Amino acid sequence: MALIAYEHQFRVRYKDTDQMGIMHHSNYIVLYEMARTEWLRSIGLTYAEIERRGVMSPIIEVQSKYMYPAFYDEVLTVKVFMDEMPQARLIIGAEVYNESGKLINTGSVTLGFMSAETRRPCRAPEWFVEVLNKQIEQQTKTNEQ
Amino acid sequence: MALIAYEHQFRVRYKDTDQMGIMHHSNYIVLYEMARTEWLRSIGLTYAEIERRGVMSPIIEVQSKYMYPAFYDEVLTVKVFMDEMPQARLIIGAEVYNESGKLINTGSVTLGFMSAETRRPCRAPEWFVEVLNKQIEQQTKTNEQ
Amino acid sequence: MALIAYEHQFRVRYKDTDQMGIMHHSNYIVLYEMARTEWLRSIGLTYAEIERRGVMSPIIEVQSKYMYPAFYDEVLTVKVFMDEMPQARLIIGAEVYNESGKLINTGSVTLGFMSAETRRPCRAPEWFVEVLNKQIEQQTKTNEQ
Amino acid sequence: MALIAYEHQFRVRYKDTDQMGIMHHSNYIVLYEMARTEWLRSIGLTYAEIERRGVMSPIIEVQSKYMYPAFYDEVLTVKVFMDEMPQARLIIGAEVYNESGKLINTGSVTLGFMSAETRRPCRAPEWFVEVLNKQIEQQTKTNEQ
Repeated sequence: MALIAYEHQFRVRYKDTDQMGIMHHSNYIVLYEMARTEWLRSIGLTYAEIERRGVMSPIIEVQSKYMYPAFYDEVLTVKVFMDEMPQARLIIGAEVYNESGKLINTGSVTLGFMSAETRRPCRAPEWFVEVLNKQIEQQTKTNEQ
Repeated sequence: MALIAYEHQFRVRYKDTDQMGIMHHSNYIVLYEMARTEWLRSIGLTYAEIERRGVMSPIIEVQSKYMYPAFYDEVLTVKVFMDEMPQARLIIGAEVYNESGKLINTGSVTLGFMSAETRRPCRAPEWFVEVLNKQIEQQTKTNEQ
Repeated sequence: MALIAYEHQFRVRYKDTDQMGIMHHSNYIVLYEMARTEWLRSIGLTYAEIERRGVMSPIIEVQSKYMYPAFYDEVLTVKVFMDEMPQARLIIGAEVYNESGKLINTGSVTLGFMSAETRRPCRAPEWFVEVLNKQIEQQTKTNEQ
Repeated sequence: MALIAYEHQFRVRYKDTDQMGIMHHSNYIVLYEMARTEWLRSIGLTYAEIERRGVMSPIIEVQSKYMYPAFYDEVLTVKVFMDEMPQARLIIGAEVYNESGKLINTGSVTLGFMSAETRRPCRAPEWFVEVLNKQIEQQTKTNEQ
């Protein structure tokens, strides 16, 4: 079960479609990024903040499975979630639902951590893990109520 | 070992970079598509031709591993290859090399086959497999010389 | 003075930045489209509806002036407006404001009208003009209150 | 008449199309940039070189007129040209031709010059103008032969 989950909505733009009449498959990768960014912001972890603290988080791996197409003008719900606390890597799962609630795509993105100074890989910073822990506690309380 | 391989070159455009100063990770998915399309065209299998023959080939899965960033203005070499003949699915592997020959990204794309008429999944059409077989023969001869 | 105006908000995504650290200039054209689409939808004129009625509205001209850059994560306000009723052409003006209310970009998009059947240019359809007129009336009333 | 002209070719990718079955209109702006960059590189003026010399060249204005659509897989020829020597601004004109030689789009991009240090507008640097002059001389000689 996910330790943390977050949902973001996105309306498919004309620019995002291709001549097959569906959202081009590369755009899901951008959707994952949007939802991940919004989630991190919502708990106080903007990219700007992360970089200011001397840490970079490069993308290491991306996976995406396409079950059903997304169409122009549809409002998609992109759910991102974290199943385990990050150590050397942070894995963010993703599920995309269309307007009628159908699961149309699943994916995952693996991020690493790197010291901005030395450019060498490092473990997830303590302050980062603390923020996540606090967030999990809060979410658990909310769910229990 | 790959049955067929094809190489395509691409120069990273300003538009493709992000503020980290590297090519945005979603663009690799588009590179795979460009190289795959060029390869299929080079053996007489344009999308137009495939669709005219009543077959659609939706993207089912994409994977991408990022080892090293790509920078603005670099000429990347995108190698696409096929390790086994398609049955229900066609899996195209990909490797991206930078100008100094370093392998910076690997990936794979899985395509299905679908009858344009019935919209139901089908096996790789015979004519498609034949074109591939002819191409493999030719490539083997070239390699033996 | 604008007959009709509409505002849409957009948060600059990482994907939209380039290595200069700002939103790439081509993205403003997509912002105009997003705001225009949202405006048309808000008055009942979706693209789908327009096309269902046998009319196409190709882009004829785009202009964009850049006064100040937009940065990652900023929430931009895109204002689109119409200064005169469409005849052969519909001209939509645009203004983009950053979070601190600064006008950072102005632009305009000119659309034509074309019969989907004959593919020949035509005037703005009557039902289209009627919807606009109703909308202007309503907006005027709101402003007078 | 153009002082300098340069041509660049580009094949429309699946990603560049939209559900109208044509290349999305925002992509022309990216085409102008590609051709402009290739032209500047061809005369020894890469962006990297320009920035290394302490000058930035922000986009100030873009215009684009659409006469005819571009389709998937077409090889477009993007011609960029300069009608007068830059002073405070550099104006690059553009013409896009399809495979059958039809002029399908015209445009122009206006760039300014700015000191990277002071962030204040400046005139086109002398060394930049010199390179252009040398190039014009060369092109004139070639045309006279």
